[in-house]
Amino acid sequence: MLTIGIDTKKKEPIYEQIYKYIRDEIKQGTLSCGTKLPSSRKLAEHLDVSRNTVDLAYGQLLSEGYVESQPKKGYYVSAMDDIFDFEVELPQEEEALEDVSCYPYDFTSSGVDMAHFPYNTWRKLMREALMDDNSELFQTGKSSGDYKLREAIRNYLHQSRGVVCTSSQIILGSGMEYLLLLLSQILEFPYTVGMENPTYMQAYRVFSQLHFPIKAISMDDHGMKVEELRRSGAQIAYVTPSHQYPTGIVMPISRRSSLLAWAREKEERYIIEDDYDSEFRYQGKPIPSLQGNDKNGKVIYMGTFSKAIAPAIRVSYMVLPQTLLKVYNEKLSFYSCTVSRIDQAILSEFLKKGHFERHLNRMRALYKSKNQFLIQQLKIFGKNIKIMGSSAGLHILVEFQGLKDHRKFQDLLLKNGIKMQAISNYYIEGKPEKECYILGFARLKESQIAEGILQLKEVYDELTGNREK
Amino acid sequence: MLTIGIDTKKKEPIYEQIYKYIRDEIKQGTLSCGTKLPSSRKLAEHLDVSRNTVDLAYGQLLSEGYVESQPKKGYYVSAMDDIFDFEVELPQEEEALEDVSCYPYDFTSSGVDMAHFPYNTWRKLMREALMDDNSELFQTGKSSGDYKLREAIRNYLHQSRGVVCTSSQIILGSGMEYLLLLLSQILEFPYTVGMENPTYMQAYRVFSQLHFPIKAISMDDHGMKVEELRRSGAQIAYVTPSHQYPTGIVMPISRRSSLLAWAREKEERYIIEDDYDSEFRYQGKPIPSLQGNDKNGKVIYMGTFSKAIAPAIRVSYMVLPQTLLKVYNEKLSFYSCTVSRIDQAILSEFLKKGHFERHLNRMRALYKSKNQFLIQQLKIFGKNIKIMGSSAGLHILVEFQGLKDHRKFQDLLLKNGIKMQAISNYYIEGKPEKECYILGFARLKESQIAEGILQLKEVYDELTGNREK
Repeated sequence: MLTIGIDTKKKEPIYEQIYKYIRDEIKQGTLSCGTKLPSSRKLAEHLDVSRNTVDLAYGQLLSEGYVESQPKKGYYVSAMDDIFDFEVELPQEEEALEDVSCYPYDFTSSGVDMAHFPYNTWRKLMREALMDDNSELFQTGKSSGDYKLREAIRNYLHQSRGVVCTSSQIILGSGMEYLLLLLSQILEFPYTVGMENPTYMQAYRVFSQLHFPIKAISMDDHGMKVEELRRSGAQIAYVTPSHQYPTGIVMPISRRSSLLAWAREKEERYIIEDDYDSEFRYQGKPIPSLQGNDKNGKVIYMGTFSKAIAPAIRVSYMVLPQTLLKVYNEKLSFYSCTVSRIDQAILSEFLKKGHFERHLNRMRALYKSKNQFLIQQLKIFGKNIKIMGSSAGLHILVEFQGLKDHRKFQDLLLKNGIKMQAISNYYIEGKPEKECYILGFARLKESQIAEGILQLKEVYDELTGNREK
Repeated sequence: MLTIGIDTKKKEPIYEQIYKYIRDEIKQGTLSCGTKLPSSRKLAEHLDVSRNTVDLAYGQLLSEGYVESQPKKGYYVSAMDDIFDFEVELPQEEEALEDVSCYPYDFTSSGVDMAHFPYNTWRKLMREALMDDNSELFQTGKSSGDYKLREAIRNYLHQSRGVVCTSSQIILGSGMEYLLLLLSQILEFPYTVGMENPTYMQAYRVFSQLHFPIKAISMDDHGMKVEELRRSGAQIAYVTPSHQYPTGIVMPISRRSSLLAWAREKEERYIIEDDYDSEFRYQGKPIPSLQGNDKNGKVIYMGTFSKAIAPAIRVSYMVLPQTLLKVYNEKLSFYSCTVSRIDQAILSEFLKKGHFERHLNRMRALYKSKNQFLIQQLKIFGKNIKIMGSSAGLHILVEFQGLKDHRKFQDLLLKNGIKMQAISNYYIEGKPEKECYILGFARLKESQIAEGILQLKEVYDELTGNREK
């Protein structure tokens, strides 16, 4: 007879306590293979609990394979060979901890403000997606992503960016880099990629890694120089026209037309338009996407929800021109979609029910206010700085006058708890005429911005011998 | 003065109703840019609601940028240029519907039984992962995946499959195909891949697509023939030794040793061990992984939670030998992890809290019972069938005696609502001596299995003129 100590004060239900006791006895071998368990009536009497409670415990043990049922005879302990038992832990290993030194004034421009994330809404949508009868959601879905989500994204892109496409042209993936991997398999011609200089280094790394020859194309006030692109012999142009990363240059309509004209000149040419944070414009009217103005199927439009919602969500999208969609469908549609269907379902509702629109408006107002606050704080520098790229996006560019030794400046900044990226780190080749710094503000509170800028001024003054206040 | 119809019977809070009314008036242009809103005190009096309620509504409008606040003056309607408004829908387009014809007796072997999925537990873990102060979770994480999850997987793999590694050797990805894409970038040497014939076609498609030369290596009762592999000149062997896909052959220890010896012969050789459904073994002791027996860093171990939990989860893992891990860290660690950090957090707790162990045990008992039931039902065929690969996994192999025209058989099966894959579809080259059929049972209820087998027998009898019962 099993004598199981039952603690009625514990939160754990009694049947769970009985189940665990017997399970552990079986795992340890105290109840060996072939042992017959007492009948549920007898055990219930012995433990002074209801028979139902014991039946529940026995049912668990049976369903997990710890015991077998022999009809009209009872329950017998199974062979332990087959049971999973993950409780023996491996010795703890030391993970080489990454340098997670915290900088109080971290202006490096990644991440988003999560204080205003609609947690309640997201949790509610998660619960709804996970209803028990949604089991179809748990099976493998369509390679390019679920139709409902692609349809919702199509709608959003059309309204917000003037993108023109059918939902079948939209391919979903768990990140920009993955979509570039897919794209690299779609483009079979040995492509040379022309990239803005400076550029988004993640894209540069992917193209490099995949052995695409890369040509660095310089920019002027309007963005990538098209004549230089033409001379470079590149067949793909990778551009960020809404808000060039990292300079912040917005490509005006005239330059966009020239770029589209370049693409039309040869059949194998394409433009990759990376519209990474086009949602956040603070001044002037938004210029619609290049893709919307392209009548020749030359633009591959790419975007992500990383900036608009959160990097952790891992949903990015690519709109393929019909010629490339055809190649995708013929050669690559065997790939399973890399985005969890549950996440797709949540995001789909988030978009369709208007939550995304509200969230974007809130975030835009918030980022605009931080952008303006930062610029206001920088006024203490007077004529000693030049600010660029402040009309949109989650970072601005600052050029400091009178700085000779940038290495020393950056070291001193770090010592004072200030982290900023220099724009020279984004150059594929060569370097900027004048070094500038990227000040990202998405994750900082206004108090951090204010204190950070004061610190920055002190460091600057120290280096330049500046005594103005 | 705004006259807003408030419906106290509606579920929607009053402040929401006020907010929406004003928002829509602004969107439509009825309240034009620069219009001053009534003070909250006056509007509250007019609508006969509390001032607090109006303040809440105004607060929403302000936070979303519909109105601006001028200190000591009031709220003024903003310019609509900047506001996102996604409510104009595009005309509905027709998505080319996929052939979703339902077969009542669908034995094609993909998917898992979701009726026993622990929805409550998963929902609870989702809620916990999404606590408001978990905002760090929403930023970009480590390229190979969060440490906690890799640690939990390391533990699980060691206990269940005898895998020996540190957690830094584990790379997470949103699917097997993605991990193969990464692996193809790690292996720079122009590798030829030796694959079992027949094989897992998804892997074949990825390798083909990436232009890896592929050699089909035939198998005997013990799996891949190592001498043939040696002669083929392949440098990578892709194997599924726990339960060969699709034949179900379990590679015995002797053959595993030969395979490991082959790999040791040359420095550039590696073995990819795809352990896709090793969790479900029904007879005999499980043989530990190849990786666990490899002392020379020759085995790349790959697995997934698709079969053990659900395909929708999209979490797979790869254990790299130290030599390849070094290459990954040097060249590929810039890639962001393709698995949502929220999903990583949920899965991490699911493993650590013992839920996965319980779920696996339950599923194993369930699948074992279905496996046995299926075999029992097939007894009506008597000597007319041969059953193979039934000791593990989520499908069995059946060879029907006396069938000449397999094309006709398959057509007749479809007409009768029975869907089954023929093994010849999994051959890279050549074809089987005798055609067999794969019967997957994961998603079928016992009643469907019983009816399906009866139907199958009728079709078989009709074709073979068989009158035995």
